[in-house]
Amino acid sequence: MKPNRKLTFIEFLAVALAFIPTVSLAQDPLPSWNEGAAKNNIMEFVGKVTQEGSPDFVPVAERIATFDNDGTLWAEQPVYFQLLFTLDRVKALAPQHPEWKDKEPFASLLKGDMKSTLAGGAKALAEIVMATHAGMTTDEFERIVRDWIATAKHPKTGRLYTEMAYQPMLELLAYLRASGFKTFIVSGGGVEFMRPWTEKVYGIPPEQVVGSTIKTKFESREGKPVLVRLPELDFIDDKAGKPVGINSHIGRRPIAAFGNSDGDREMLEWTQAGGGARLMILVHHDDAGREWAYGAESKIGTFSDALMAEMKKNGWTVISMKNDWKVIFPFEGK
Amino acid sequence: MKPNRKLTFIEFLAVALAFIPTVSLAQDPLPSWNEGAAKNNIMEFVGKVTQEGSPDFVPVAERIATFDNDGTLWAEQPVYFQLLFTLDRVKALAPQHPEWKDKEPFASLLKGDMKSTLAGGAKALAEIVMATHAGMTTDEFERIVRDWIATAKHPKTGRLYTEMAYQPMLELLAYLRASGFKTFIVSGGGVEFMRPWTEKVYGIPPEQVVGSTIKTKFESREGKPVLVRLPELDFIDDKAGKPVGINSHIGRRPIAAFGNSDGDREMLEWTQAGGGARLMILVHHDDAGREWAYGAESKIGTFSDALMAEMKKNGWTVISMKNDWKVIFPFEGK
Repeated sequence: MKPNRKLTFIEFLAVALAFIPTVSLAQDPLPSWNEGAAKNNIMEFVGKVTQEGSPDFVPVAERIATFDNDGTLWAEQPVYFQLLFTLDRVKALAPQHPEWKDKEPFASLLKGDMKSTLAGGAKALAEIVMATHAGMTTDEFERIVRDWIATAKHPKTGRLYTEMAYQPMLELLAYLRASGFKTFIVSGGGVEFMRPWTEKVYGIPPEQVVGSTIKTKFESREGKPVLVRLPELDFIDDKAGKPVGINSHIGRRPIAAFGNSDGDREMLEWTQAGGGARLMILVHHDDAGREWAYGAESKIGTFSDALMAEMKKNGWTVISMKNDWKVIFPFEGK
Repeated sequence: MKPNRKLTFIEFLAVALAFIPTVSLAQDPLPSWNEGAAKNNIMEFVGKVTQEGSPDFVPVAERIATFDNDGTLWAEQPVYFQLLFTLDRVKALAPQHPEWKDKEPFASLLKGDMKSTLAGGAKALAEIVMATHAGMTTDEFERIVRDWIATAKHPKTGRLYTEMAYQPMLELLAYLRASGFKTFIVSGGGVEFMRPWTEKVYGIPPEQVVGSTIKTKFESREGKPVLVRLPELDFIDDKAGKPVGINSHIGRRPIAAFGNSDGDREMLEWTQAGGGARLMILVHHDDAGREWAYGAESKIGTFSDALMAEMKKNGWTVISMKNDWKVIFPFEGK
């Protein structure tokens, strides 16, 4: 291009576009990650699938990355945050349910006796969930979640739950999207518990959140069409349900999948079974100082020895929170 | 800006970006549409929701448009194209099922006696669908659909079915996307019957296709993880099921919805019940010469008098295929 010649529109565009990758690649896209195998594997994978002409190149439309939520994108101790939401809802609704004082599992729960509450197992838990998550319209439930997530504080850190998203994973989500990926959540959590805040916190819009669901019914209330949440399970998006949910919701196999527990095993297997370059990653909670350390023995976010063995056998990547992450939460050091 | 001065990168970008809207708005985005109320309403709606500062402005993330498929984006006569696919599958599978010769509804179907075949009603139809749509893996079913859609011809036009997408709707989809909309299909048809070809034909990727589903199961076949299609209904995405499907899949209320029959009524009601500017449109099949003319009396794509009355009462827009569209199919006049 000669100097001092007026540029055509196409030349403007070409020059402008040529600048963009330089600008974004000049700085480290994962500043909260220590150098090491995990960061390396991620950057090498993204490099090869986005490099035109590479044998591993993947067109933008097929760059699907799926993320578990609890324990992968945000913390999950001492129990899943949705369970803490549920307990808060029981307390809030108790005045309207005087019968709960003498009715299990509500009676134990209201006395703060978590051991007796959870002694009823899945059936008791389902009863609590249905009593707090169903009966209202989808709009009403969304408001309830928005209010809670904006105000409730974590019992240990005293922070908003959304402040307990992992800083390195926020960087990873942004890096993947800047590299043409569409990022999805695929979580065992309730889809309508996540959607009100995932866009703001993770940059993941509601239509890219896959999760467990209860049934809803379209009806008219006061002449206005509404969707009412029914006390009936629709789909559990966990374990073998994750590939099912991915297929029914996304309809395309991920090329990268991120989890942290036995609940994510089948999602990673399904991801790996596709042809071409694939990235399977498990977050390992091994940092008792800055977060929590748990694994095979934990009821929440179980990372069993069998999963560990499969991970090694299949060549999946592990993230050691202790060694691979410079910071865990965005509020650290502030 | 002074002439002959070198432009900074930011100036390049500003000038380049300033050109883009001019270029795309200089030409009619809907060239196959006659001037009239339908085209007007669409362009006025898109204009106001995309105009920053307008009281009706809608942020890009919330610009969700949902489209019925059969009779709205492509034709649906003499019967839904997925039914023709199903019949072709019965014929293809008949040699492996000698018992079908004496077993209804298959016996009548194989003799070409459609009246007796369909006399069994929904139960007979479900039996045929399950015999042809289940038992294989999702990958196998995708290949079957891809092969069929690439070769099967429509009995009247002799065209590939994908050539029977409506040219004006293809322009509308592109126009909406160019205006920042995310376009979704919300169809009573099978989601896995549509996904293999919607991206190529409509520019709508698999993850933006909502439809009816059968259940799938994650299992291992020959050491490889697969999803097997089960002969069990999961969800019917029609009538009151459409808002349910929209909520569970998209998690955000559309601001524009397009249909053509009683099956779309609740989707349009749900769309309209949101606050702010909304666009609800029904395609009316009134062109016996270039396509088909049908409505209240038709079993396929019923447009009942009650729907017509509700449309007028609620101020929904009707598209007269005869009057509003210059061409119906892309192959016309070629």
